[in-house]
Formats: sequence, structure tokens, C-alpha cells
Amino acid sequence: MVDKVLAQVRVGPSELELREFDMPDVADDCALMRVEVAGICGTDVKMYKEQLKGAPIIMGHENIGILEKAGSEFLKRTGLKIGDRIFPEHYTSCGQCEHCHSGQYRHCIGTDWRFNPKGIRLGYTAIDNDHSPLLGGLSQYIYLPANAVVHKVPDGLDPELAGVVTPMANGIEWALFDCNVGYDTSVLIQGPGQQGLSQVVACKQAGASMIIVTGTAKDSRRLEIAKELGADVVIDVTAEDPLEKILEATNGRGVDVALDCTAGAGTKAILLGIEALKRKCGTLLIQGEMADFPNFPVGKVTVKAITIKSARGHSYKACELALKQLASKRFPLEKITTHRFALKDADVAIKAVGGAEDAIHVSIMPWM
Amino acid sequence: MVDKVLAQVRVGPSELELREFDMPDVADDCALMRVEVAGICGTDVKMYKEQLKGAPIIMGHENIGILEKAGSEFLKRTGLKIGDRIFPEHYTSCGQCEHCHSGQYRHCIGTDWRFNPKGIRLGYTAIDNDHSPLLGGLSQYIYLPANAVVHKVPDGLDPELAGVVTPMANGIEWALFDCNVGYDTSVLIQGPGQQGLSQVVACKQAGASMIIVTGTAKDSRRLEIAKELGADVVIDVTAEDPLEKILEATNGRGVDVALDCTAGAGTKAILLGIEALKRKCGTLLIQGEMADFPNFPVGKVTVKAITIKSARGHSYKACELALKQLASKRFPLEKITTHRFALKDADVAIKAVGGAEDAIHVSIMPWM
Amino acid sequence: MVDKVLAQVRVGPSELELREFDMPDVADDCALMRVEVAGICGTDVKMYKEQLKGAPIIMGHENIGILEKAGSEFLKRTGLKIGDRIFPEHYTSCGQCEHCHSGQYRHCIGTDWRFNPKGIRLGYTAIDNDHSPLLGGLSQYIYLPANAVVHKVPDGLDPELAGVVTPMANGIEWALFDCNVGYDTSVLIQGPGQQGLSQVVACKQAGASMIIVTGTAKDSRRLEIAKELGADVVIDVTAEDPLEKILEATNGRGVDVALDCTAGAGTKAILLGIEALKRKCGTLLIQGEMADFPNFPVGKVTVKAITIKSARGHSYKACELALKQLASKRFPLEKITTHRFALKDADVAIKAVGGAEDAIHVSIMPWM
Amino acid sequence: MVDKVLAQVRVGPSELELREFDMPDVADDCALMRVEVAGICGTDVKMYKEQLKGAPIIMGHENIGILEKAGSEFLKRTGLKIGDRIFPEHYTSCGQCEHCHSGQYRHCIGTDWRFNPKGIRLGYTAIDNDHSPLLGGLSQYIYLPANAVVHKVPDGLDPELAGVVTPMANGIEWALFDCNVGYDTSVLIQGPGQQGLSQVVACKQAGASMIIVTGTAKDSRRLEIAKELGADVVIDVTAEDPLEKILEATNGRGVDVALDCTAGAGTKAILLGIEALKRKCGTLLIQGEMADFPNFPVGKVTVKAITIKSARGHSYKACELALKQLASKRFPLEKITTHRFALKDADVAIKAVGGAEDAIHVSIMPWM
Repeated sequence: MVDKVLAQVRVGPSELELREFDMPDVADDCALMRVEVAGICGTDVKMYKEQLKGAPIIMGHENIGILEKAGSEFLKRTGLKIGDRIFPEHYTSCGQCEHCHSGQYRHCIGTDWRFNPKGIRLGYTAIDNDHSPLLGGLSQYIYLPANAVVHKVPDGLDPELAGVVTPMANGIEWALFDCNVGYDTSVLIQGPGQQGLSQVVACKQAGASMIIVTGTAKDSRRLEIAKELGADVVIDVTAEDPLEKILEATNGRGVDVALDCTAGAGTKAILLGIEALKRKCGTLLIQGEMADFPNFPVGKVTVKAITIKSARGHSYKACELALKQLASKRFPLEKITTHRFALKDADVAIKAVGGAEDAIHVSIMPWM
Repeated sequence: MVDKVLAQVRVGPSELELREFDMPDVADDCALMRVEVAGICGTDVKMYKEQLKGAPIIMGHENIGILEKAGSEFLKRTGLKIGDRIFPEHYTSCGQCEHCHSGQYRHCIGTDWRFNPKGIRLGYTAIDNDHSPLLGGLSQYIYLPANAVVHKVPDGLDPELAGVVTPMANGIEWALFDCNVGYDTSVLIQGPGQQGLSQVVACKQAGASMIIVTGTAKDSRRLEIAKELGADVVIDVTAEDPLEKILEATNGRGVDVALDCTAGAGTKAILLGIEALKRKCGTLLIQGEMADFPNFPVGKVTVKAITIKSARGHSYKACELALKQLASKRFPLEKITTHRFALKDADVAIKAVGGAEDAIHVSIMPWM
Repeated sequence: MVDKVLAQVRVGPSELELREFDMPDVADDCALMRVEVAGICGTDVKMYKEQLKGAPIIMGHENIGILEKAGSEFLKRTGLKIGDRIFPEHYTSCGQCEHCHSGQYRHCIGTDWRFNPKGIRLGYTAIDNDHSPLLGGLSQYIYLPANAVVHKVPDGLDPELAGVVTPMANGIEWALFDCNVGYDTSVLIQGPGQQGLSQVVACKQAGASMIIVTGTAKDSRRLEIAKELGADVVIDVTAEDPLEKILEATNGRGVDVALDCTAGAGTKAILLGIEALKRKCGTLLIQGEMADFPNFPVGKVTVKAITIKSARGHSYKACELALKQLASKRFPLEKITTHRFALKDADVAIKAVGGAEDAIHVSIMPWM
Repeated sequence: MVDKVLAQVRVGPSELELREFDMPDVADDCALMRVEVAGICGTDVKMYKEQLKGAPIIMGHENIGILEKAGSEFLKRTGLKIGDRIFPEHYTSCGQCEHCHSGQYRHCIGTDWRFNPKGIRLGYTAIDNDHSPLLGGLSQYIYLPANAVVHKVPDGLDPELAGVVTPMANGIEWALFDCNVGYDTSVLIQGPGQQGLSQVVACKQAGASMIIVTGTAKDSRRLEIAKELGADVVIDVTAEDPLEKILEATNGRGVDVALDCTAGAGTKAILLGIEALKRKCGTLLIQGEMADFPNFPVGKVTVKAITIKSARGHSYKACELALKQLASKRFPLEKITTHRFALKDADVAIKAVGGAEDAIHVSIMPWM
């Protein structure tokens, strides 16, 4: 094992610094994971550009790696063995609240980085925290604190593909658990990024009978992959009238569920979702990208008897199902793991997700 | 039986005309109900002031009465007998769509008065329709078309109290079926009108352990009744800080469910509801009073992982449960049937609901 | 149109008589369907052998055909047109009870042939009823009484394949609605007849990740088709230890759901189901083939925290989903429509389902 | 603190021995609770008479007490403080399985005393286990192993009343979560012991509109208390025909849910439950008291489309709700805490539950 740990530290807006940290001691109830893959997601792109609110941060919250060192309490608690390939959720667990007792760790105040100054979330927590600076995946090693929530990666599942577990778990949580996509559901998925494409797989496996995916002119390759993963209809909204196409695909009925997986699309995706939903009782999943929505059509929402659900991460169960889904190889998901970068190229990697290149799922491989 | 039927016809904004209609022939699959009670609701107040969009309308959609004449097909279909006390939903049923096959008649296109020019809804349909002018309750008789959805009023239930069935059914539908109020739920009910007070009863019976009701300075009597019906805490928002009081009543936790039963309160009720909900996973029931909501706080909604449900009438099952609830006499609901008016005083009655007087549930008794 | 109607009448145990009936007049709220296909199911095989309890019966309760004559009330109520291809449920609807108001017509007392002497169920009701002798599908025409529940067959769906709607609707009802088979469920389906194979399709479409089907030595062709329809593992219980194979297929865990689709297997299927379920909280669907179960292992059932559901027909919604499933052509279901017989050969047809021949779905084509 | 711990040890069928144990050292992730109250339940009565299967056992699985000593890991994990009044579930948690990640600790293999020789369950585990002999409540102190599941008792809740948490949590789990008792449900509760009476409270709070409780001649005081807790109808089955009375109370309809809370009633309670359920789609909760049920009426069960649920302990959430229910003082539950005994009188206490005396909830107070 090395003595020093290299990590990319975000020291300002769109500014990373490659730093060397001491290899940490591992407390009895903690562990150290050698990072094989750190996935970059749309949230990273957004946060990357922002001002720091405190000390610098090691980003990277979609991490797969090998359990290399662990205290005896940690091993006892998790049932893991040194050498296991694992997926630590970026959420941690206080173990005491209603959320933690039902596997909904993401809602625990202990992992709330927004409102709890002591909140620990991998990839979101500044290096001056009480545990270890190494709480993000853009690093050779990540420190797993006492209340880390850790999943074992199924045997035979490639680490890079395992890195898709986070969008896949979100797909299962949002489409299946939040919006009840299932047998014969018709679904509109807006945005063919890694999140949207993972939704395609979740919805297809769940029995959706009409899956419509929208993108823009620059998404032609992504829309093609959407079809290969099971989408029934894909729409380039810059070339066609999406509402017209959606109604055509659903015999004028509209969809049961509309999922917003766009990034930076402003109010458009929500407005199209409301229009595209069937006459009564559809379900709309929203992202909270903007703080305020000007002139939200609340009248139309209620006349259509719409249910609105908020996209908000994943539960323990969704992660387990996502790992099983990935390991099943029932869908050619290797088509979405398009780009891999070395740790030193993290800035390029984050910007690739942002859009310049035709990237879908982008991985940092710290040991590449 | 009389030869002529007296009815109040809305001929313009806030303008009624007492007219005489011929006693209609009753087709084989139709019926005629002698109106005992026609309740006035908040929606009536709003619609009363609007311009007509076509021919005049006989308002009145919360009606209780006696089945006085019926064709043989009607009797066969409904199992009713002449002389039965009945509650016809204001929705009608096409009998063929997914909504009608699941008792969700309110969602049927056949009863959609907004978008279907042929849509039939009692109290909303103009007198020049294909069936009969007598399709509203502000009349001595109401004509029940072939696809009327009719409930038998339980024996021993007073007709005026039975007239509360509509807000009570809404209470059951919105609180119980839409928002899952049940064992140990904490609920905020904004607006102590007949709708809000019916919610109190529905929530209390369902096992809610903390029911908070808000009103304004003019609602002191209503808030008192809220407590008599089971509210744990009542708040006059013009005298106290409602959010502070809600947090105090819930030990700082906030409520599980926030139900908006205000009228004309603008964006305030929704904004307070969002704040009052617990940190994560609360449910907000909204009315679509305004067409657009300026600066809707979509960011906060998603960070709190809120589910939004749309208030939209009641199902068949909710009506049956509401009638049983009223007949059970478990709650002193007679306290909310505060005002009764003769048919000729319908204008005064509608304005009473609008606010001048201390009215909660206002009934027109066409034969008084 | 012909003057006389030919029908097979069951006049005693395993005894049919081809009789000629007068072409009936059609009441205003009734209709007449030209029978294209009358499917035979396992229940028919069982009932065929029994003593009559009253007058003779025209059997046949899985019927597809053309609406040839209909009263104006019937057309108005159903929205159908003469010439439409239709599927009348064998259940009828009183239109007034809680079951009928929620599309659960099978539970209506009006269609209960066991306990209600006036109960009307197509294929089960004796010829001396109040409506018409022609209430079964083994006939050139079937009379649709006033409260028939009728589905339109989707365009492009072949009538013989449409005849699979009943087992398919049962599959959806039992597996999906009763037992919550869905995303990633593991299922044991015992019995590879038309009912078991329809369950395979329902479960596969719903996202089950492990489908195990059992049969006996004589089922080799059926088990092969099970695999073609999506079963992951098939077991010949006469050649292999089924429990061992089930545990092997599920990594020792057992299945989430065990569905009994056997006929005449006695207590064995239920006992295997209980053993095959996972350690805790599995769901067991039972048929009530025998009146009493000797030494039912209630201790084991509760220790395993098992939920038991009763197989009992299908709802309106399940039928609609089944017709859509069949019309989608997503599964090669034409492989199960193995046998067709003329009306005169009905006795041979019923016996074919009973077992001699390698029949899966057997259809009577009255006009063949 | 004392040096020695007194405990009652079951050394054979119906044979206790008061022994002295050394005060244990407390490992870093474990704790020691001073037992204030150890409730005796029907299962204890049954187990008390049985042969030992291995080493002697300290019984007592419904325990309330004060956290007196605890390792630092234990305090960190649970968030508790020395001196807190607590309720440790008798189940322990492995923390790694699907059940533990959803708060369903009772289903964890780690707490399965029947099939897992290493399984730890307070009050069921022999004194020669790997942790501590002090794993039962009939003792001055109970040792809380690393994976104990501990609830804080709400302030102001008397420890003896808090001791009712186990039957109350079962009541919530079985009636509400398993059988969906709620708004307007009609329920039959057979057996007016502490379990049946707790069900009355759970069902009443949940909104059941008809609660029927059965008992025998010796239950007159218990049936009286049932009424004081909210039962609508009570039946002495030795004096009246229970089925007749149930049908009378439900206007001939039967009940929605039948809960078996009898002990030693053989097949009778289940058979009555099946008869008492409504015509279609009722739910029957069974205990697995006997290993096999002779001639189980599976035919009737399926014709009535019954769902059978297995009574099996309680989830974390049910415990939290039960503690809140008890602390709310909404029901006069102090009427069921009828008997308290000193540790030395444990044999008398267990036999009191068994029946001689008019005992409902019986507590051992080890320091009395």
C-alpha cells in the first residue's frame, strides 16, 4: 500500500488541485476503499462551477472500489471481507431516525449537506470535517466513516459498469417507487443522459409498454442507444414537435408518467410534461433545478388531477435492485459507459459530462 | 305533483332569475328527484360571479331529495324505489371508460363540463342541453339523466345533514385516499369552511394524532367548531405566526400532510403548506384556484421531497363512506349546517357562503 | 341470419346433446353475439363430469365473437357498434354493489352461480333461466343479458388468440394484482397448462427476474413452450426433485411468490409451494380444488410469515390489460392455441383439455 | 450498583431456579439495562411447559428498564444516554440483510431462535450463548448485545404501562400493516387477552367502525374492559352463538377482517373467522398455534376470496407507534395492567397469565 494518497481537490469554481494526503489511520468502526471508478454526474457539473461555501472539497459521489483496510467493528457490522468489491452510497446513516430504520438513508439529517453543517455525504463534504479529508471519489482512496452504507458488488460485475449503479438506482427509485411505473405503463423520459437512459432500462424491465425519450440535436447517438435499450419512440425536440409525436405514439391519450431527466432545460421540460400527461391522474416527476418556477400552471395541474413527485436520490433497496439489474446483463448497458479518464484529467472529465463531447457515463479511474 | 317546476336560473354574473319550467316527461332510463336540500359550496360562489359561456344555467350540485318519478330501466339499473331518499353525484357516468369502471366518475370525459361541450354535470350544465333544462339543484325538481350516479341516503339521516355529503366525500378522498392520512398522521388543514371542517372529521376518524386548523379573524366561530369536531390546535393567522405555532404543536417537526381548503387566499396557503411540512417526504394537497402561480418554489419542494396531490372531487367509494360517516353521528356535524334559505333567496344564500354572514354550510330548501 | 341456433347442451355427467333453439328476440337492453371461439378451461373439465344440479346447461365461458344484433339501450350503454368483435366476461354486473362500482364484477352476488339461484354467469347458468337458454359459448350464438360486461377486442387481434384473454386476465389478476409480482420478483408457477403459461407471460412482462415452471412427464412440450415464453427454469417433477431445483435456481433463497396452476394434483402443489417460498414473507396463491385440506401445515405457514391469496377470476382492468397484452404480440402466444374443434366435437374437445392429447388451449369454433 | 445479578432461570418444564450471576463487563458496543418491568405473554405460558432444547434459559422478552451501563460505541450508535428509560426489542439485528435494512428485524436470520443455533432473541436464548447469560427479562439486569434494537420510552410514560408496548406493537403490525384495518373497517377480534385488547385500541384509533370481541365465560371482566377501550360489541361464545351475533352486528354482511388472538382454542377460532368474514375478499389473520390443521376448509377460503395473513411479531415502526399510542393516554390502557409480581414469584406470575386468576397484563418487577 502506498504512503500517500493523491486526490483532486476543488479549491474554487471550476478549479481543481491535485494534492497529496497522508494515508489515514483507520478507526475501529471505519474503513478505507481503494477507488476503482468514480462516476461523474450532472449534479457534479453544476456544483463544479459554484463558489465554495467553506473549505475545499474532494468531489466524486458515485464510487466503486475495493475494501482495502477496515477496523474490526466495521467488518463485524457490514459482514464484508477485505478485498471485497463494494459500492458505498454517498449517503451516511445515523442509524437512529425513522429514515435510517427504513433504508431511506438519503433523508437522514446526518447526511444532509445543505442544512446540517456536520452532515457527511461522500463527494459533498469539505476536507476540514471531523472524520477524514478523503471523503470523495476523485481520489486514490476514500475513507468510509463509521456510518457508511455499503453494498457488496455482485460477483462478475465489471467495476466500470457497476459505476452506473447510482443513476440506475435513481431510475428504480423515481420511476418504480415514486411514480409506480409498471405493467403496461406509458412513460415520457425527457433527457437521454445517463440518468434518462437508466430510466429506460428500469421502466422497460418493469413492464412499461410505451417508452418515449426526448433529446436535442446533439443527442443523436444517445437517442440511438435509448432505442437499443428499449425505448419505443425517440424524439429530437429541436427537429420535431414533441407533444404532437407523444400524442401520436399514444393514440392521442398522452402518457401515464412523465420523468424529467434534463439538465439546464429551464421550465420547458416541466411544461411539456404537464401537457404530455394523459387527461386525468398522470404523474409528473420533477427536478428542482431552479429555485423558483415563474408562472407555474397550477390551474392546469389540478384540472388534470396530476400527482407531482420530487426526484431525490435512492433508497437502500433501489441500490440493491440496481446492482442486480446491472449484474443480470439483460440490457446492453455497456453502451452508456462511454468515457474514462485518469485522475489528473478530472477537469476534462467533468466538462465532458457538461457537454462538449458525446459523453454519456463518464468515469474517473484513479489508478489508470 | 305540481304541473310546473320553479327554478333559479343564472342568467348572468351574480344574476338569478326565478323561472317556471314544464314538468318534464321522464324517459325510461331516467328519473325525477324532488329536491329537499341543495347545498352551496365555495365553487358556486366563484362561478356565480362569472360571465356565462353559453345558455343560462341552473346551479346547485350538492343535492339531496326524494325519488319521485322514474322509468323502469332506471329503477332496474339502480335498484331504487320511488320514495327513496337519494344523493345523486353531480358527476354522470359514460359506463364505458376506465374511470367509470373503477368508480372514479369525476374523471369521465362524459361529465367534463370544461372541455366537452356535451359533458353533463349537475349544477354546471346549461339549460339548452339535450336532456332537460332541470339539471341543477336550485330548483324544485332535478332531472336525473340515464347515466346519473345515485346513492341511497341511509335511513335515519336527516336530509340537511345528508347535504354535507359532498364536502365530507371530498374530505375522505383528499385526506385519506390522496394523501394517506391515517393512524398517527399529523395534518395541517388551512381554511375552516365546510370543506376544511369536513376534513377535520375525516382525519380524526382516520386516526390522525395532530390536527391543526387555520383561519382568520372572522373565523372565530368556525375555529371553535373545528375544536369541537376534533382539531387539536387552531390558529388565527391574522393574530399569530402560523408557522411558529405549527412547529410548536409538532415539537419542531412539521406536519405529514398539508391540505389547502382556503378560498381566495392566493399563493399564501400553498407557501405556508410547503414550509409547514416535515423536513422530508411530506404531502401537499393543492387547489387550482389560480391559473398560474408566480415564482413557485420548486427548489424547496424537491429538496423537501414533497409529493403534491391535486384536489379534485370524490369517487363513488368516498361518497358511500361519507354517507356512512354522517349517519354514524359520531361527530356533532349538525354544528356546521348553519343556514337554510328558501329558493327565492338563493342570491342571498350564495352571498352568505361568500362571507358576509357567519355561514358554514348553507342549504337551499326549495320547498321551504 | 339463420332461424335456428345450434348449441351443445350438457344434459348429464360427461353427456352433451346437440340441440336446436329458436333464434331469440333481443330486448332493448340486450344483445346477441355470433360465437367465433369458445375456449375450454380446466374448470370445464371438472364440471363436465358432475351431476346436474337443475336444468341442463350450455357450457362455454371464454367466448369471443361478433356483435350481431343489439337493442338500442345496449348500444348506448356499451358504446359498441354492430359488427364489433367483442369479449363478454362470463360475469354479469348488478351495477349497484361495491364490487360492480369498482370493476370487480366477479364478486357480485348477481353473478354468483353457487349461492344465488338467480345468479347469471355465462357458461354456468341453466337453460331454464329468466333471460334466454343461450347463455353459454358452446353454441352458434350467445345471448348477452342487460348487465353483460363486454370488452371490445383490439383491432388486429385474431379471434382464436383473443380467446386466450381469460387465462391471461387471470394471470394478471393473480400474479400482479393479488401477489404483487413485479420488478425482480422470483416466481414458481406450478402447472404448465394454459393458465400456467399465461402466468409466465404476465410475470415476464411485469419484470420477474426468475420464473420457474413445473410440470410432469407428459408436459414436455408445454415446458418447452414455457421456456419460449420466458421461463428461466422448467422442472419435470416426475424426473427431478423440484424443491432442490428451485433452491438451486434461487441460490438457496427460495421464491417470492408461488402460484398454483395445477389441476387434480391434490395437496402436493400447495405443500411444495410452502416449502419453495423464501424464508420469510413469501406469497402463496391457492386454488380451492378440494373442499378440505387434510393436515394443513399452519404452523409452518405462520413461522414463514406467509401471505395466502385465493385464485378467483379477474377484474375488468385485468381483462383490458390482457387484451392489450395479446394484441401487442410481444410473446409468441400463438404457440399455446394448439387445438380447434367444431361444435359437434365438443365432447372430444373437453376431453382433450382433460389430458389425453397434447392440448394447451383448446377452442370450439361453432361455425367451423 | 450491585455485584451480583439475580435472575430466574428456566431449568426444565414449568421449573424455575433463582440464580445469582456475576455482574457482567460491558463490551464497547454493548450495554446493561436495569430491568424495571418484564411482561409475561401467552407465548411464555406455552414455552414454560416445554422441555428445554439445550441449556437453561432466562425468559422474559417484553422488557422496560433503565440504561445503566453502556460502551461508547453503543452510545454513539443508539444516541442514548445513561439513565434513559428504554424498550429493547427482543429481536436483534444483523444490520446487513434486507429485513434489517427495512426495520423488519423480526425476520432477520440472526434473531431466529428456531432454525439458527446462534440466533439471539432476548428471552429465548439459552444462558450458554456467546454474549452473556443475562439475555432475558426475568432478571435484575439484562445484557444488550451489540445489535440490540432499542427504543427510547417517551417521557411521562409509566414503565408498567410502557410494558404493554409489545402487544400494542403487535396490534398495530397485524391489524394495520398486515390486514389494512382503517377507516370504516369492521373487525372481529377473538380472544380478549392483552393481545386482543391491544388490537381493540389499535383498530379503534385507526378508524374501525365496528369492533367485535369474543371471549368465554371466564372473560367477563376482560370483555367489559374491551368495551371501555372501544369495542362496539362483545360476545361470550359460551353463552351465545357468535356467528349469529356477528352477522346481527354487521347487518348480515360479516366483517372485513378477523383477527385470531385466542390461545389454546384449537381450530375453532380459525373456523369461526372464515365464517364471520364478509361474502368476498375478507382478511383472516392466523396464529400458528398448532403444527397441522386437520381438514382445513380451503374450498370455502377460495370461494370467499379470502386473504390469509400470518401473525408474526412487529416491526420497528410498529414499536414506535405503539410507544406513542401508549404515551398519548387516549385510551384507558391502565385497565389492562392488572398484575405485578416480584422476581421470586415468577412462577406464579406465568401461571396467572395461563388463566387461574383474572389477569390481563402481568408484569414482573425485579426490584419490587
